Amino acid sequence: MKTYRKELWFDIPQRRGFINITPKVTDCLRESRIKEGLLLVNAMHITSSVFINDDESGLHCDFERWLEELAPHEPLTLYQHNRTGEDNGDAHIKRTLMGREVVVAVTNGALDFGPWEQIFYGEFDGRRSKRVLVKIIGE
Amino acid sequence: MKTYRKELWFDIPQRRGFINITPKVTDCLRESRIKEGLLLVNAMHITSSVFINDDESGLHCDFERWLEELAPHEPLTLYQHNRTGEDNGDAHIKRTLMGREVVVAVTNGALDFGPWEQIFYGEFDGRRSKRVLVKIIGE
Amino acid sequence: MKTYRKELWFDIPQRRGFINITPKVTDCLRESRIKEGLLLVNAMHITSSVFINDDESGLHCDFERWLEELAPHEPLTLYQHNRTGEDNGDAHIKRTLMGREVVVAVTNGALDFGPWEQIFYGEFDGRRSKRVLVKIIGE
Repeated sequence: MKTYRKELWFDIPQRRGFINITPKVTDCLRESRIKEGLLLVNAMHITSSVFINDDESGLHCDFERWLEELAPHEPLTLYQHNRTGEDNGDAHIKRTLMGREVVVAVTNGALDFGPWEQIFYGEFDGRRSKRVLVKIIGE
Repeated sequence: MKTYRKELWFDIPQRRGFINITPKVTDCLRESRIKEGLLLVNAMHITSSVFINDDESGLHCDFERWLEELAPHEPLTLYQHNRTGEDNGDAHIKRTLMGREVVVAVTNGALDFGPWEQIFYGEFDGRRSKRVLVKIIGE
Repeated sequence: MKTYRKELWFDIPQRRGFINITPKVTDCLRESRIKEGLLLVNAMHITSSVFINDDESGLHCDFERWLEELAPHEPLTLYQHNRTGEDNGDAHIKRTLMGREVVVAVTNGALDFGPWEQIFYGEFDGRRSKRVLVKIIGE
């Protein structure tokens, strides 16, 4: 069994944003030389997400609007978590909705994806460097 | 290490619906002859889900009502994604709520499940053939 | 390839609650002697969750309030599932929001976590013994 590990770093200048990280994950898979197995990609922070969906800017606007409706950033007093001095109570909930991680099948050395699947990093408390972990196991 | 891969196809005649796919996944596991490992089941489309819950029709009605409340299909203009000519903006969000994938432990050649766990395919933009991927790794 | 399996039992005296199970999962990993691989932790029941977030009590209150807003326990008649004689229709949906499982990378014999990641058991229909499964595969 072979294993591979890499951290990817992202620094989104706004509070929130989405980045298509599929090319970077594909680079990791190539570097690992693993042909058959499972690939885990997870946010290492608890106010950001890794998820799979469509690379379409309208959809990303829809996600942004919808997340703000279900877990608005303000008023800050809505969140008991913000009494700790943080202002990211909403970000913990937004990340919960979008998910921490994805597990992807590796087949013939490639991400075994349907036609529109793309991997995204979702940031909900940005303006600083944060990490994503890629772990691959297989042969 | 052994690996196994299979695509399962589904064609739900309505826009939305749930199918218990546990028997089909169990068939895959038997065919793989893998006794110990991990099994991934994921939707290969971004408007459908794979999730684990109860096989109870009242609950499925509750999911349907709840998903329509949180991400209604109409008005179509609610979703910027629909400006691309699609009418499935809601389906992308519904699938996000229900999840893309499940990872299940394989123990003694069986799905290592609690008493009520069943695997479902959740369709949110049906009326066409769509795929689910089963990938198993282990020994 | 090595594999490891253990069930963890929890009995939360209230209907709902969160428990940090990271120490118990860390014990499992040590016992497994697996140094590199993937670790799955999942609820074996369909009215409870396993998720990763911050160990901060204010945040847990925020989760509780938010889940009650999105899927209130009452009125019981809101859920067709409750016509079966159950009163846990809300718990099935709350568990869907918080997630069934997490997959964690194992690196150098440790949970490969960011600085604040902790694993929680989320109970939404407690007052009885319920199980979590830990399955580890690797070397």
